[in-house]
Amino acid sequence: MASVLLCLHLLGALLASGHGLTNEPRKVPCVAPTRWEGRIVRFEQNSAWNTRSVVSYDAVKMRVRFLEEKKSIIPCKRFYEYIKLYADGVQYKIEQVTKACKKSPLHETFDPFDIPANSTFEDDYRIGGPGDQLLAQEWSDRKPSRMLERWIGVYTTKDCYPVQETDIKKYNVTSSTRFFDIKLGIEDPSVFVPPSGCKATTPMEFSRC
Amino acid sequence: MASVLLCLHLLGALLASGHGLTNEPRKVPCVAPTRWEGRIVRFEQNSAWNTRSVVSYDAVKMRVRFLEEKKSIIPCKRFYEYIKLYADGVQYKIEQVTKACKKSPLHETFDPFDIPANSTFEDDYRIGGPGDQLLAQEWSDRKPSRMLERWIGVYTTKDCYPVQETDIKKYNVTSSTRFFDIKLGIEDPSVFVPPSGCKATTPMEFSRC
Repeated sequence: MASVLLCLHLLGALLASGHGLTNEPRKVPCVAPTRWEGRIVRFEQNSAWNTRSVVSYDAVKMRVRFLEEKKSIIPCKRFYEYIKLYADGVQYKIEQVTKACKKSPLHETFDPFDIPANSTFEDDYRIGGPGDQLLAQEWSDRKPSRMLERWIGVYTTKDCYPVQETDIKKYNVTSSTRFFDIKLGIEDPSVFVPPSGCKATTPMEFSRC
Repeated sequence: MASVLLCLHLLGALLASGHGLTNEPRKVPCVAPTRWEGRIVRFEQNSAWNTRSVVSYDAVKMRVRFLEEKKSIIPCKRFYEYIKLYADGVQYKIEQVTKACKKSPLHETFDPFDIPANSTFEDDYRIGGPGDQLLAQEWSDRKPSRMLERWIGVYTTKDCYPVQETDIKKYNVTSSTRFFDIKLGIEDPSVFVPPSGCKATTPMEFSRC
């Protein structure tokens, strides 16, 4: 019985991965742009807060800069700028009003906004409808018949711009990032340069509330 | 002190709502199509499963039909069709292989895929980038300075097609629905007609595994 179940499992995996008994060619992920500026809305489960930021993204030099957007005026809310330099293993957090700055180690590895080569093709579709639409593809790290997805990425079909990335952990959406207003290239590379004299030991001086 | 805080709070609410001291005209939600067919991916926190369905949506007669898509072959997974008739307060769940059917009361009220008139405008943007983009607007039920959002809706700017709806409860994304391949109208209205003889008392006969 166990061997029959294993056989069914493997057969399912073969069929679902686009190999084996089907003749459908295997889809290959598109190559996402490596240098761009745009905007994101990031929802994080821990805070339940939708953070809107202007983003400068440079996968070549493994650096990202986020500038939180003041889209609504919330009394006492502080807005930050983040500079993450993965090649150097350091990050900077800068309060936008006082320019108070904190430098700290960056332990996480650089996770580019792209579709990894071993991803599972999930779907392709038009976002929107007739006369008002965008072709997109959806990929995940799901392993057919073996593992549920922990990451889902939606990218435009033509130019491979990121549309949405979702992270899932233990049956929860832990974070969801939606991308828009993307422009290729970095207009001003100095956005990645942290303020001089920014040290780990400097206490953050917050703006008055 | 309390009165100062209250004042700041109200001022924040006025500014953030687009009234008061700013001259920006108040944005009015677009009117979403009331009859369409398309596809959705729905993520529900409880199941951590991405359900892909073909949808027929009729807001005029308050009825929706979901046909789960077999996008990947998963041994022993059953696929269902759901017919929800809100005007009658009944719903039908039909197993796609055996056509085993179950009728049950539908207690929830009809919640159309649209932007309620009292929604808060959050943002407008291009999904994608130059040469490969779609204009969209984002709305929520957030009450500036008073209540965080429990619902976020993204709709295309030109034709008001739904792009994404997200429900949030107690700091968690409880469900997220992404829409695509939308076509206006209902090609075959018989999709809303449940199988004859489908009763609440009929036990579900599942397909063999």
